[in-house]
Amino acid sequence: MIERIETNQRMSRIVKHNGVVYLCGQVGEGETVADQTRDCLSRVEALLEKAGSSPERILQAIVWLTDINDFAEMNEVWDAWVPEGHAPARACGEARLARADLRVEIIVTAAC
Amino acid sequence: MIERIETNQRMSRIVKHNGVVYLCGQVGEGETVADQTRDCLSRVEALLEKAGSSPERILQAIVWLTDINDFAEMNEVWDAWVPEGHAPARACGEARLARADLRVEIIVTAAC
Amino acid sequence: MIERIETNQRMSRIVKHNGVVYLCGQVGEGETVADQTRDCLSRVEALLEKAGSSPERILQAIVWLTDINDFAEMNEVWDAWVPEGHAPARACGEARLARADLRVEIIVTAAC
Repeated sequence: MIERIETNQRMSRIVKHNGVVYLCGQVGEGETVADQTRDCLSRVEALLEKAGSSPERILQAIVWLTDINDFAEMNEVWDAWVPEGHAPARACGEARLARADLRVEIIVTAAC
Repeated sequence: MIERIETNQRMSRIVKHNGVVYLCGQVGEGETVADQTRDCLSRVEALLEKAGSSPERILQAIVWLTDINDFAEMNEVWDAWVPEGHAPARACGEARLARADLRVEIIVTAAC
Repeated sequence: MIERIETNQRMSRIVKHNGVVYLCGQVGEGETVADQTRDCLSRVEALLEKAGSSPERILQAIVWLTDINDFAEMNEVWDAWVPEGHAPARACGEARLARADLRVEIIVTAAC
C-alpha cells in the first residue's frame, strides 16, 4: 500500500501511496541559483522517472528560496523546464535551508 | 486523470487529481494583513468553486506570513471565514514572499 | 467522505480523506530543540493513533526550524524516532513560528 524507495533512517527520497508520489525536498549543486535550480530539477526528473511518474504529472510544487530576490532567476529555469500545458500548482517563499550554500529547495508531489 | 485549470507556463491555479484539488499559493491585495487575508480567502473561495469544491471541503492550509507578528490579525479574518465545523488541518510560519508588499500567502489542498 | 477530529473554529488537528490523514502543524514544549522535537513527535504519534494511522505510515513531513542551526540537534531526535524502514519524504527549512519560544514545527501527512 505504501512503497518507499531510496530509504534511509532519516527520510525516503520517494514515497508512493494511492496513486500519489511524494518526493523529499530536492536541492541542487552549483554556484548560482540558476545552476542549482537546473540541477535540482534534473534530480526531480530522475526521481519521478524512478517512481513511475514524470514532470508532466506534477500536482504541487513548493519552492523555498534562501533569498527571495532570486525569484526571477529561479523562474527563468523553472519556466523553461515545465512541460507546456502541464504546470503544477505552485507556491514560493523564502526560507534558509539545511546547508548555507544552498539557494533553492523544491518539494514535489506528483501523480503516478 | 489530472485536470489543470487556469494554466500558464509557470503554474496552474487549480490542479485536480484523484478527488483532491491543489491550489497555487494565493495572495491578496490590500494595505493591511487583514485586508490581504480577506482578499486572499475570497480568491481561494472562487478557485474552489471553479474546481467543484468549496471552503467546507478544505483538507490542509499552509499559511505564510511575511511578519509572524501579523498572526493575530490574520487569524481574526481566518476564524470568521472558516465554515463552522469544517476547519482544515493548518500550519502557519513566517516567510518572505515573492513581492515585497505581500504580507500573507495561503496554500490550500481540498477535496473535490 | 471528510472526517475532522478535534476541530475548533481555526483548525482541525486531524483531517481524514480518501485514505490520507492531514495533521495540523505540531509543536512541542521544552527548553531545547531536542526536548521540543521529542514532545512534538509524541503528539504526532498520539494524533496518528487517534486517526487510525501510525508513525510507520507517514508519507510526508515538512519540518520548520526557527533557527536552521538546530538542524543536527533536531535530526538526532528525529532519526531515533522514525521506525526503521518507514521514513517519510521530508523537507526542512527555517521559519519563525507562531510563538517566540517555539523552535520546531512539523507538518505531517500519513496514510490511514
